[in-house]
Amino acid sequence: MKYKTCVSIAETTPEKTKKVLKIALSKSDFVEVRFDFLKIEQIPQTLEIIKKDLNRVVCTLRPKTEGGKFSGNEKERKAILKLIAEYNPFLLDVEFNTLKKDSDLSKYLKSTKTKLLVSWHDFKKTPNSVQLNKKIKEMSKFSSNVKIVSTAKSTNDSTRMLELYSKKGKNNLISFAMGDYGRISRILCLYLGSPYTYVSLGKAIAPGQFSVDEVKKIINLKK
Amino acid sequence: MKYKTCVSIAETTPEKTKKVLKIALSKSDFVEVRFDFLKIEQIPQTLEIIKKDLNRVVCTLRPKTEGGKFSGNEKERKAILKLIAEYNPFLLDVEFNTLKKDSDLSKYLKSTKTKLLVSWHDFKKTPNSVQLNKKIKEMSKFSSNVKIVSTAKSTNDSTRMLELYSKKGKNNLISFAMGDYGRISRILCLYLGSPYTYVSLGKAIAPGQFSVDEVKKIINLKK
Repeated sequence: MKYKTCVSIAETTPEKTKKVLKIALSKSDFVEVRFDFLKIEQIPQTLEIIKKDLNRVVCTLRPKTEGGKFSGNEKERKAILKLIAEYNPFLLDVEFNTLKKDSDLSKYLKSTKTKLLVSWHDFKKTPNSVQLNKKIKEMSKFSSNVKIVSTAKSTNDSTRMLELYSKKGKNNLISFAMGDYGRISRILCLYLGSPYTYVSLGKAIAPGQFSVDEVKKIINLKK
Repeated sequence: MKYKTCVSIAETTPEKTKKVLKIALSKSDFVEVRFDFLKIEQIPQTLEIIKKDLNRVVCTLRPKTEGGKFSGNEKERKAILKLIAEYNPFLLDVEFNTLKKDSDLSKYLKSTKTKLLVSWHDFKKTPNSVQLNKKIKEMSKFSSNVKIVSTAKSTNDSTRMLELYSKKGKNNLISFAMGDYGRISRILCLYLGSPYTYVSLGKAIAPGQFSVDEVKKIINLKK
């Protein structure tokens, strides 16, 4: 089995995004482009100049309420999500909280057959197993591609996120924990069936993240 | 494949050693008894009261120069190592630096068919791959049971210790890194062929060590 990586990139201009995306794709199976690091008016142009590569791109437009940088309002954010959907990327990451609040958006994305990754993040802690399993169940109503991420304050928090793979059913589950205690989950999730693990190109963007080179070395140990 | 654990215990009286050893053996495949935490004169008695369990015990008597607590001189330490050898434990851990300096000791342990674990620790850094491979080659002259442990200051240090498994040949290799960056190597070493991984009963004794309960949870994920 090939263990796959997804490099997260967060550039601030269309040109830089194109350039760094190319480098990232040369090293990684998939790349997550954090569109929320761009100015709103730059996003359409960025999509145009990287459209050939979007079939390997996870597109993400995080609002500030979910740890992102998007500076516009929710109406603008949803308009841009719909615009991204028109490019039919590998995956469009939309927060569970967004989809839950706006049934029109989820209906629209369904009608356009957008490949949706429904995501949920806890930047403070790791909920208990009952809460986590309930969350996944609710999330999977929107898509079979489910990303659930917590913050580990102990090894057991990290393990609890990994235990979710045993109940993933037919979902493509990406479940791991952020933070120093979560580092191990970013590797072990691959062995447990995660379609890929998020990595950085160089310096970590998210807490506890490995670089693509580090993860490749680790993956290659198991050959 | 069953992934195995070795709980390190470091008690200060014969009675405590016996009691904690029993608990540890109920949770773990093997137990390392750190005899250097006992007073010299308590060691013979301790051996007597735990002798029935020594077939699952790694016996270790670390000198201060190797991060241990043994308070006697080297002559006394070697006498006690020979005494432990008479009990034919699962493994007797003797430092590479000790064996290298004293060919009489290594000859004696060979003549008694003591199951020797030759160990080497770097408490400050992780040497480069050439140095590490050279070290293992030298160590394996004394025993096919080789334990080589470094201190990781980066993920790459940790990975470098794991890369050693690809060249272990017929040796039973235990290779991992201490410290926060080394934590992942304490788990991945199992998947790469380490006969066991060192864990704590409760609080970590060595830097970056997991508890036996934490490791068992992680091991069970992969079932």
